[in-house]
Amino acid sequence: MKDTEINILEEIELNNPIFIEALPGIGHVGKLAADHIIDELDATKFAELYSYHFPPQVFVDEDGLVENMVNEFYYLKSQGEDNKDYIILVGNSQALSPEGQYQLSGEILDFVEKFGVKEMYTLGGLATGHPIEESRVFGAATDIEIIETLKELNIEIRSADGGIVGASGLLLGLGKLRNIKGACLMGETPGYFIDAEAAEAILDKLAIILNIEINTDKLDERAEETRKMISKAQKMEQEMMNKTLGSGEDDLRYIG
Amino acid sequence: MKDTEINILEEIELNNPIFIEALPGIGHVGKLAADHIIDELDATKFAELYSYHFPPQVFVDEDGLVENMVNEFYYLKSQGEDNKDYIILVGNSQALSPEGQYQLSGEILDFVEKFGVKEMYTLGGLATGHPIEESRVFGAATDIEIIETLKELNIEIRSADGGIVGASGLLLGLGKLRNIKGACLMGETPGYFIDAEAAEAILDKLAIILNIEINTDKLDERAEETRKMISKAQKMEQEMMNKTLGSGEDDLRYIG
Amino acid sequence: MKDTEINILEEIELNNPIFIEALPGIGHVGKLAADHIIDELDATKFAELYSYHFPPQVFVDEDGLVENMVNEFYYLKSQGEDNKDYIILVGNSQALSPEGQYQLSGEILDFVEKFGVKEMYTLGGLATGHPIEESRVFGAATDIEIIETLKELNIEIRSADGGIVGASGLLLGLGKLRNIKGACLMGETPGYFIDAEAAEAILDKLAIILNIEINTDKLDERAEETRKMISKAQKMEQEMMNKTLGSGEDDLRYIG
Amino acid sequence: MKDTEINILEEIELNNPIFIEALPGIGHVGKLAADHIIDELDATKFAELYSYHFPPQVFVDEDGLVENMVNEFYYLKSQGEDNKDYIILVGNSQALSPEGQYQLSGEILDFVEKFGVKEMYTLGGLATGHPIEESRVFGAATDIEIIETLKELNIEIRSADGGIVGASGLLLGLGKLRNIKGACLMGETPGYFIDAEAAEAILDKLAIILNIEINTDKLDERAEETRKMISKAQKMEQEMMNKTLGSGEDDLRYIG
Repeated sequence: MKDTEINILEEIELNNPIFIEALPGIGHVGKLAADHIIDELDATKFAELYSYHFPPQVFVDEDGLVENMVNEFYYLKSQGEDNKDYIILVGNSQALSPEGQYQLSGEILDFVEKFGVKEMYTLGGLATGHPIEESRVFGAATDIEIIETLKELNIEIRSADGGIVGASGLLLGLGKLRNIKGACLMGETPGYFIDAEAAEAILDKLAIILNIEINTDKLDERAEETRKMISKAQKMEQEMMNKTLGSGEDDLRYIG
Repeated sequence: MKDTEINILEEIELNNPIFIEALPGIGHVGKLAADHIIDELDATKFAELYSYHFPPQVFVDEDGLVENMVNEFYYLKSQGEDNKDYIILVGNSQALSPEGQYQLSGEILDFVEKFGVKEMYTLGGLATGHPIEESRVFGAATDIEIIETLKELNIEIRSADGGIVGASGLLLGLGKLRNIKGACLMGETPGYFIDAEAAEAILDKLAIILNIEINTDKLDERAEETRKMISKAQKMEQEMMNKTLGSGEDDLRYIG
Repeated sequence: MKDTEINILEEIELNNPIFIEALPGIGHVGKLAADHIIDELDATKFAELYSYHFPPQVFVDEDGLVENMVNEFYYLKSQGEDNKDYIILVGNSQALSPEGQYQLSGEILDFVEKFGVKEMYTLGGLATGHPIEESRVFGAATDIEIIETLKELNIEIRSADGGIVGASGLLLGLGKLRNIKGACLMGETPGYFIDAEAAEAILDKLAIILNIEINTDKLDERAEETRKMISKAQKMEQEMMNKTLGSGEDDLRYIG
Repeated sequence: MKDTEINILEEIELNNPIFIEALPGIGHVGKLAADHIIDELDATKFAELYSYHFPPQVFVDEDGLVENMVNEFYYLKSQGEDNKDYIILVGNSQALSPEGQYQLSGEILDFVEKFGVKEMYTLGGLATGHPIEESRVFGAATDIEIIETLKELNIEIRSADGGIVGASGLLLGLGKLRNIKGACLMGETPGYFIDAEAAEAILDKLAIILNIEINTDKLDERAEETRKMISKAQKMEQEMMNKTLGSGEDDLRYIG
């Protein structure tokens, strides 16, 4: 196995697909939204990405089966009124190291570019740290035309007092260097629980931008599942940090 | 020397051996169990793995001789009622970095696959952080058939609220991608002392799964030896962390 | 994309240009000074450097547009009484890892050496941690002749109780190994605000050394802009550190 | 420049030289001892090692001149009653990362092996953390014969409750894999000051082992110089750690 490997499960052809990314991040808002699209629109998994840059661990599922750290590519064909194709990237982890983050974002862009991707949306959360009455959606983009579109949809423009850390930011930035246009949509969230409302706010805006319909009735149910997954992921990450930073007796607690 | 190097001590042929891994981890439960198997069944060391990903240090043994950080491969032939061959991996350290963990697990799988390994068991501990009346054994596996077997042996199935960090998890996960089936057996342990009982609990289950006999009478004695080794290992790891994170005057205390 | 990539925007020829470096650092004194030179003398950007060693993030500008982490090369031709050419390196980030710092400094020197650079000045700040009446300029150099010149200009010589961490130090040190002569000029600054006076102190000395005129009237205005940019950069860096070191619930706050 | 580069200053031939290593470490005991040998016996520098694995910084000397992080190889010919040749390795830094430590130790061994090195002594300190009446010397070795020799010289054998972190340990361990025999001599030191007595204790033992004479009269004077150098080194290391771990406003204090 190379450092990073993409296993193709199904050979497909797509027509300039739109690329949607939502790897685990703040409040898992993006992941929740993307998992919902995959489920509602019945997307098909066609490739899996494994990497040495992921956390060195496995998850265990409800049945006791081990799950590798993985990013998964799904596709959708001829969706919505515009008959557009889509590639959706979800997964259970992001790269741990800065170099790994760049490396993986580069590999992911190399892969989706082969299908003719010219447009991308990355989905994430924006943590406020305090309760929110109604979740707003914030946006940033590679092009001023897209910014105008976001404004027309009452998406708040993420201003110069912040940035975007991790895959949602890097894919957009590195994509810009390859002339892939796109935006990052961030659902405002307190950040300390799995926020179905923030995900719904993103999905509502995304549906308009993409001119597709996404039923969000089952989103709450999905949020509950995600809550379980995340509780596990955080526990693992905690153990990982302990391992990296820990010492002496604490050491006894964290390697499986 | 390359980043990772495996020195062959004896050229051997094995018949689809079962692979058992038990590198240092929680409560050194797995290591204690595997060292005991090697001793009791008189396994033969046939290869040593050295790696730049190990902690940059040497141990010093009772005689004042330096010991490199190393993983060691032992073999056993025609064991138990099924006349099975075995490869057992033990050692005094695991890779420090996440990338190193993946790298080493990959190299180890490449190596054992050449001998025809199709089945593996990784041994570890599961820390409770509090005293235990009787050490239970927890399990996770790559296949639902193995899960069923574990359940029949009253092994608790590790459920979705956790995962497995380090070599015991990664070897199983990456092995699954190569169609090597297997399970991780984790002995419940308070985690803050070298737990011969947790190791015995694992050995009892493993003996049934593998259909071999393992006398555990001398396990307590071995636990005492391991205690000494671990005390040293922890001290080193502590020094390492200090070196990595330390500064200024503290600096004077930790580089040899 | 390779680990580090330099995109040429304009093919130029320069006559043994003097190389000036001022990447983000202490009090952003150097960056402020170099940005001011670029603005006042109307330097032209001719190359951009992108690297996997930068923080894995994007900034968002006033309009909501994403900005990649980048180092930028500008040139100036026939400046001052000596009709000298210049290459000026500025940017929004430095490499995160030690190896990345060396790697980038090496790539940068490879690049500027092709234009015939034999002389370099790296600009930075020296933090006192307390208020300063009048900002002094400290210097260190590759050659005793340059040290003499600095002394004649009332630049304090940085003595043996300190060193220079990061690009300003490494470029000078690695440059010395390639027979590029040079000095590092450090403006004394309290360190806890964007210090236009420290930048002005550096610019005054640099103007004399280089025999060019640099009007510093608009420096305060520029300091204000830099203040905004830095506030953003620090916030991102904070988020990055949290991500690297954080765990559990905190985790929810920082990945976009 | 490659990751690690050795610049040859003088082409020499040596006759199975004995290799002595003393890079900065605990109480700089080893470095002080080795610098003293170089000075007293008038050793000649013949090679310099530069590496991306060193801290990304430069030191500044008394004159304001920048000094790269470097390891330096010296040689001595036909010393003592046995007419032995020597290679002595000193320097101002060790690799920062674990992988870097292994990488550099490997490169160093590759280099000295070309001269026919079959025997090595690594010099270091052993910190007690409390005042010492008379500094003992502790030893560890690759061979039981050497252990016997050390015992005859009243060198305490470092027992199984410890190990040796960093270059002094790794060179010995990796050397052992290449059939280079050797020992590590560690001078007992409180650890919180530059300990000329610990260095003298090591030199006394080493002189007997090597059958050479080393006048230690000027050792105190040298200790004073080393004290200055170390104070600087520690300050830099502190700044480095701050840079790596720091955030936000603190950030302003540490990059040059």
